[in-house]
Amino acid sequence: MEQGTALSPPGEHGEHHVQHVDEFSITELVNRQIAATAPQRLAEIVAALTRHLHDFAREVRLSESELMAGIQFLTQVGQTCDDRRQEFILLSDVLGLSMLVTAQNNRKPAGCTEATVFGPFHVEDSPKHALGDDIANGAQGEPCFVRGAVKGLGGEPVANARLEVWQADEDGFYDVQYAGLDQSRARATLQTGTDGVYHFRSILANSYPIPHDGPVGKLLAALGRHPWRPAHLHFMITADGYETLITHVFRNGDRYLESDAVFGVRESLIAEWIRHPPGPGPDGSVVPVPFYTLDFDFVLNPLPGAAGKTRN
Amino acid sequence: MEQGTALSPPGEHGEHHVQHVDEFSITELVNRQIAATAPQRLAEIVAALTRHLHDFAREVRLSESELMAGIQFLTQVGQTCDDRRQEFILLSDVLGLSMLVTAQNNRKPAGCTEATVFGPFHVEDSPKHALGDDIANGAQGEPCFVRGAVKGLGGEPVANARLEVWQADEDGFYDVQYAGLDQSRARATLQTGTDGVYHFRSILANSYPIPHDGPVGKLLAALGRHPWRPAHLHFMITADGYETLITHVFRNGDRYLESDAVFGVRESLIAEWIRHPPGPGPDGSVVPVPFYTLDFDFVLNPLPGAAGKTRN
Ligand SMILES: [Fe+2]
Ligand SMILES: [Fe+2]
Repeated sequence: MEQGTALSPPGEHGEHHVQHVDEFSITELVNRQIAATAPQRLAEIVAALTRHLHDFAREVRLSESELMAGIQFLTQVGQTCDDRRQEFILLSDVLGLSMLVTAQNNRKPAGCTEATVFGPFHVEDSPKHALGDDIANGAQGEPCFVRGAVKGLGGEPVANARLEVWQADEDGFYDVQYAGLDQSRARATLQTGTDGVYHFRSILANSYPIPHDGPVGKLLAALGRHPWRPAHLHFMITADGYETLITHVFRNGDRYLESDAVFGVRESLIAEWIRHPPGPGPDGSVVPVPFYTLDFDFVLNPLPGAAGKTRN
Repeated sequence: MEQGTALSPPGEHGEHHVQHVDEFSITELVNRQIAATAPQRLAEIVAALTRHLHDFAREVRLSESELMAGIQFLTQVGQTCDDRRQEFILLSDVLGLSMLVTAQNNRKPAGCTEATVFGPFHVEDSPKHALGDDIANGAQGEPCFVRGAVKGLGGEPVANARLEVWQADEDGFYDVQYAGLDQSRARATLQTGTDGVYHFRSILANSYPIPHDGPVGKLLAALGRHPWRPAHLHFMITADGYETLITHVFRNGDRYLESDAVFGVRESLIAEWIRHPPGPGPDGSVVPVPFYTLDFDFVLNPLPGAAGKTRN
């Protein structure tokens, strides 16, 4: 018996017509299976992803054991995710994908504050605070007074802007990273006054490593990369008539400014935290320890046709 | 106060020199962080993956919400994996990546049996059976007698080849998919005799859907793709002096031959399962119900310098 003698030649019985499959033809075979009725954007994304993924596998001539290692890595990334941790966001961050997507979706006119990565530590509905409040709420760190204005591109003050701020403590952890802590710390929602000004008290931002005890940390280590982010404050600012701004303010002088593990640093977002000796703080209170001040203004991009006024 | 007045111009104090980041420059920034000391192959793979992933995100102009949807999808894929299920292999399979990697790592000379995807249902150390045994071991399905020869490219019989076979039952499930079943069914390890021949009794292979109650199944449904694979038997054949062969034999006439959900069908792997009325089977036993026979020979690729002989 010869190999395949039982096989009907393709088409002879009209029974089947199997396409030749090899590492090149497969890309078209896969994408041809997407139904014409599939949602157009999903079809476009999956087809492009398939092409680029296949191009990658061909370019490096991925071996079978390397594919399995990749599958096991991604499985571990997924299984490291839980209520407090999103390891796939970390992976997207360290591969620069998050920053790429942030950049291409937030091109802004010159003069506007630039956007940077969202990060995994934002929380919806953080506690509302009045201007001037201490938002630390028990988070440990040296005192820091932050103030500035929210403006439009024309220089107009933006009143009633909703300003969310969140940051890590002196040990480099966000409140949500503490198991069992059901309290918000060093995060708040504030609102600018009619003059567009915001101000609050919090703690000094410090550089911190992204969570690196999981598969993403192992990948960084294998690549000889460190997991550190330069010190920063996160801001999300929403205001009627303006594009929402998600960004950080980075602390000048930080050793990791040129090697942020998630590639979020932009020159225009670097600012000076000024150190002061013990004494009266900018809010008039006496601060018995050294403290810092940070002044930073944000410039929002007006929505088309809505510049400087409230949307109807 | 102007935006960014506190910022030292880059390089002025020699403190930092932050590169401009946008959706184009980021690719080089990311890959420049890979240390020169990183293992060369890992560095090569991650750098290429980053380039192709970034190209993809730029080409489709991936939005922030689409990135988050992708991250949530991958998280669900990871969290669907457990001891009995590998959803990331399924994802690789339905995107054609598994078959691409199989094809490019198993180019064989004309005349050799072609390889196809490994699939997620192989088990190490399946039960050893003697030639002629019924390997069904309780798996339900119509009886099927399988036989053939294992040969080298020169036509020589391959004695003592180790032949692993595994298949789904009439309901389309492999033994490992039954929770609580700690028994091998319809899988076995056999060894060819001195004539290179193998033969065993099992059950009829049927088409079956890949597990589609998870995120990969949802993706297929969204794309208008079905989850079915045409009926097949899995084989893995190892023999001294020859390349290991991992392949399937597909059943001619199956309605899914042209649309295998994992793109594993190759024309040369399609064979006839012949139906017989109740009566004597090829092993001489009387079979009281209709039964099938399948004859299929495998041709192995000799390892360089080892053709037809046992390796030292
Ligand atoms: Fe952060
Ligand atoms: Fe299978």
